[in-house]
Amino acid sequence: MLWTDVAPRDGLQNVKSTIPTEAKIRLVRGLLDAGVPRVEATAFVSPRWVPQLADAAAVIDGVRDALTKLRVLIPNARGLELALEHGVRNVLVTIAATDSFNRRNVNRSVAESLADLERIVDSARAVRCVVDVALSVSFGCPFEGRVEPDGVIQLCSELAARGVDEISLADTIGVATPASVKNLVVRSARVVPLGRLALHVHDTRGLGVANVIAAYEAGVRRFDGSVGGVGGCPFAPRSTGNVCSEDALQALAPLGATTDIDLADMCRVAEVLAGDLGVDLPGKLYRAGVWDAVPVADTLEIEAG
Amino acid sequence: MLWTDVAPRDGLQNVKSTIPTEAKIRLVRGLLDAGVPRVEATAFVSPRWVPQLADAAAVIDGVRDALTKLRVLIPNARGLELALEHGVRNVLVTIAATDSFNRRNVNRSVAESLADLERIVDSARAVRCVVDVALSVSFGCPFEGRVEPDGVIQLCSELAARGVDEISLADTIGVATPASVKNLVVRSARVVPLGRLALHVHDTRGLGVANVIAAYEAGVRRFDGSVGGVGGCPFAPRSTGNVCSEDALQALAPLGATTDIDLADMCRVAEVLAGDLGVDLPGKLYRAGVWDAVPVADTLEIEAG
Repeated sequence: MLWTDVAPRDGLQNVKSTIPTEAKIRLVRGLLDAGVPRVEATAFVSPRWVPQLADAAAVIDGVRDALTKLRVLIPNARGLELALEHGVRNVLVTIAATDSFNRRNVNRSVAESLADLERIVDSARAVRCVVDVALSVSFGCPFEGRVEPDGVIQLCSELAARGVDEISLADTIGVATPASVKNLVVRSARVVPLGRLALHVHDTRGLGVANVIAAYEAGVRRFDGSVGGVGGCPFAPRSTGNVCSEDALQALAPLGATTDIDLADMCRVAEVLAGDLGVDLPGKLYRAGVWDAVPVADTLEIEAG
Repeated sequence: MLWTDVAPRDGLQNVKSTIPTEAKIRLVRGLLDAGVPRVEATAFVSPRWVPQLADAAAVIDGVRDALTKLRVLIPNARGLELALEHGVRNVLVTIAATDSFNRRNVNRSVAESLADLERIVDSARAVRCVVDVALSVSFGCPFEGRVEPDGVIQLCSELAARGVDEISLADTIGVATPASVKNLVVRSARVVPLGRLALHVHDTRGLGVANVIAAYEAGVRRFDGSVGGVGGCPFAPRSTGNVCSEDALQALAPLGATTDIDLADMCRVAEVLAGDLGVDLPGKLYRAGVWDAVPVADTLEIEAG
């Protein structure tokens, strides 16, 4: 299983207060030390659009020794150039499943984004840089409402044909359910090898973990999540983040999903991040503690004595 | 499917500030009006132990017209007497899966609780009152740690033999995972008809909804949950409540679980309860809004003018 923690990018990008670069580097390093195989460390986007990630180059420089485990978001060919200049060899491009969302997001039609993508893949391939694509609003769009699976499957085919490495079904606004996840995964798997499919969900309506489990049971082995479930704007109580990595991982492990990720370490990373942001994060495991069947009462007595 | 909302009892019992009886009656009525088939309205327990539920009789009196849809918790034969006096015809007794927890909870061994239960069932049967039992700490105990399924299955057999109507596998401290839920359900179903098995989970570690889905897929059709996910102590940020009814129900419906429960109504009940308690509740759907595939942007434009 390939778990990607996107907290440093998707998790932090909408935080209004400026987070010190050192805190971001500590976060990326904490995730890697906890055994996370891949971390989405930042984005090479215009600071005008995402001021929080204006220090992308400094973050990458701070974890240069772990470059092979990092992915960064890029919006266009210029982003790829910057990423490559800084030694990154795995980039993520987002393309929406609907024209309305794509235009709002990157000011282009989906067809134009696909044409851009072809150039990005060509440039990346020349330097053996892996290109992943997230299909945002694959389960529902705030502007167009219901998104028909047929269109998403068609896009999956086109991305596979263009040599994209990982194709991520992204539930950007958190409207997927286990049933719709299974349905879309099963259908996508007819046009993309299951090993290249990923699921990226937000916990907007409380179904994040259930949706990850549904996709896992349908054969998906690549997932995004964020430590502590950070995301949205942690200072706006009603906005929501990515599915919480450690919450989901505790459920996946007993189902046979093997990773090197240490849940207690992840909880400590969440705790530090909560401290850095000065707020409680949505994730639950880091607050309750990892259950390892050691009686809580014993633990308390040991601690108390 | 039989969904029981336990917010008025399990959800509120640990709230420290006194909640007005009228607010509790409004909560029970709101749940019934939203289409919830059964509501755990209160408990006939000593006010010394649970001061929040000292107004049990007044709450029942306030929703007397809906008596057939109410269940109350009772700790012993005296509780049954009070419940029957007030016209209740469905009671819940909790018995722990471990001796340590049972002694802390009701100051008796499990064997003593089973003997008490026999008397309760006899008295109840005489007036056609339904007796349900929740097996607390079925998935893990704060005092004994791991709870072996064998012991839980044995208890299920004994309860079934004693004529208990519903047997609820209760994850009191929130340590179950979809894998352990499926395992325990499949094994319990060998000694208890699936139609009489229930699942009662807490969202302590973020797996509440995923655990409900796992049990549903294993054939369970009776569940407890609380509107807004209220529970634990809402004023202690790190304590946690029951799985949120409406969050779970939105995932169950597309899997074929039919109920008469209106999710938008449930969200309004959660909103009112949050107002009555003066805090945000853990549930997510009531904050995000029910997704009905109507473009969010359209909705916003309509609202804006």
